Amino acid sequence: MTETRFDVLCIGNAIVDVLARVEDSFLARHDLTKGMMRLIDEQTADQLYGDMGPAIEISGGSAGNTAAGLASFGGRAAYFGKVKNDQLGDVFTHDLRAQGVTFESMRATAGPATARSFILVTPDGERTMNTFLGACVNLTAADIDPAVVASSQITYMEGYLWDRPEAKEAFQRAAKIAREAGRKTAITLSDSFCVDRHRDSFLELIRNQIDIVFANEAEITSLYQTSDFDSARERARGDCEIAVLTRSERGCVIVTGEWTSTVPAHPVSKVVDATGAGDLFAAGFLYGLTTHRALDHCARLGALAAAEVITHLGARPEMNLAEHARRAGLL
Amino acid sequence: MTETRFDVLCIGNAIVDVLARVEDSFLARHDLTKGMMRLIDEQTADQLYGDMGPAIEISGGSAGNTAAGLASFGGRAAYFGKVKNDQLGDVFTHDLRAQGVTFESMRATAGPATARSFILVTPDGERTMNTFLGACVNLTAADIDPAVVASSQITYMEGYLWDRPEAKEAFQRAAKIAREAGRKTAITLSDSFCVDRHRDSFLELIRNQIDIVFANEAEITSLYQTSDFDSARERARGDCEIAVLTRSERGCVIVTGEWTSTVPAHPVSKVVDATGAGDLFAAGFLYGLTTHRALDHCARLGALAAAEVITHLGARPEMNLAEHARRAGLL
Repeated sequence: MTETRFDVLCIGNAIVDVLARVEDSFLARHDLTKGMMRLIDEQTADQLYGDMGPAIEISGGSAGNTAAGLASFGGRAAYFGKVKNDQLGDVFTHDLRAQGVTFESMRATAGPATARSFILVTPDGERTMNTFLGACVNLTAADIDPAVVASSQITYMEGYLWDRPEAKEAFQRAAKIAREAGRKTAITLSDSFCVDRHRDSFLELIRNQIDIVFANEAEITSLYQTSDFDSARERARGDCEIAVLTRSERGCVIVTGEWTSTVPAHPVSKVVDATGAGDLFAAGFLYGLTTHRALDHCARLGALAAAEVITHLGARPEMNLAEHARRAGLL
Repeated sequence: MTETRFDVLCIGNAIVDVLARVEDSFLARHDLTKGMMRLIDEQTADQLYGDMGPAIEISGGSAGNTAAGLASFGGRAAYFGKVKNDQLGDVFTHDLRAQGVTFESMRATAGPATARSFILVTPDGERTMNTFLGACVNLTAADIDPAVVASSQITYMEGYLWDRPEAKEAFQRAAKIAREAGRKTAITLSDSFCVDRHRDSFLELIRNQIDIVFANEAEITSLYQTSDFDSARERARGDCEIAVLTRSERGCVIVTGEWTSTVPAHPVSKVVDATGAGDLFAAGFLYGLTTHRALDHCARLGALAAAEVITHLGARPEMNLAEHARRAGLL
């Protein structure tokens, strides 16, 4: 197999997070389910923003956060995603590139603005996301540069992409190119409601085109329509090569073939903002995997990165994760 | 005198802060003086941004921060400043209004984009500001709504406005209207380099049109071209009705007529980001003044607000300052 140019190519919705602290009563008033992501149209976005308190803008997007985390570990990361040629598009692009991620996707010059997700952080640190997809709707199969896919060890994609038919096509094209080039593919199931929307397609995808599946407890039990984590875990074992199942403070379970391993969560004194926990877990895990570490070790790197990102506002690492991992004796 | 509609009208450069943590070596490489504000053109802004790491966008602008702080205390605040009709202009406008500040200035529809300040925060918590004034250059005397000025107890303005002739005219017009309506005027000297650029005008202004002067040690000693704080303090005593001189962790000195008082700083465990300390001090002080509290008490409210803002990134309060002050026994 030829040399790779990238360790991980991440593909996802390119989003700037608009973060505000709210009380639980704000969620109730807006009929929002805590911890979930919902898609909103521009009018709802304007209404919600008008009702929200002062906010902070930070680059986000699930796969974008993973790419940033991977680069922070020292991994070679690339990203495909669609922003518009506007100020928030500049912000998103700058932040990813400044982190060392290769991001060359063509920007949209017409159509809706760069995507925003209004992320409401309650006093318990839990986040509830309201995403206006904006320019993300212009991500299509044409944005998948086959040379980059073929020269990435792993192509990692968000389940969220399936919410738009064109982005779903882009996802499928990337998976096909990666597989044909003898590379690995990975998916995060993104959100239990997202799984609910695309259950059958996700199952077919995982069985046929994906090597590594990342899911939290709500997502994997939604996928297999069971309330029992252990039975979902066993179903996942049969369906994919590696399943990485995260369970918040209960750590994660890795399932591959006959082998199962449980790795504890990294200790955290106080959860300030849970946004990005899963994304950064994936970053650490994928960094470990592409540097040929044992799966348990990969999970410990993931747990370390997830623990860092939930101690502050925003879903991108605030410290150099390579140094952080070295101090923790993991690199 | 007629009833007032606002406690404080704040007038300043409307700026979105772009905050990034940097090492001291970054300042050295870019030949930047720690703690200072410099004005940069669009090309320099692009270069600096290209060289900076990932950032966070938070609404800022000195007088904007003061207005936000005042509203957080429960004061009736209005703001005049110029943003463009663009995404960062939306962000700035939303954040001020969401905090409860009345902000109705017409937006620029042409010309440069909404202003940004690249704020580099070093590990010691000190901040170094690089401001691209953008749309602020379109703030003119025509933006001064005389009805709002005349119905505000105090009109508070940034010294930074003097860096642009049109904004300086706006400042002078507002001061004139306020005085003619029997209202009070206040200025912050903003930055010692700014004082250096406008020393003679500032002195004339303070002697003739300003009731309350806010300055830190570097600014007041620059104004009177002395290295001795005490002699600067005595010069200020002769030049204005109330001088409020802040000295970071050494607290502040209030000078009025024959009376002098020193109020200690509010304790802070760790300075995360000094941005906005002076602005929030002014917010607390002005809130106290417009609710007819003793000057020492005003200073304690200022110290409390300054202490809050330096414990986190960004120059706007993260908590409700009225509640915070009540818990501290100050309201």
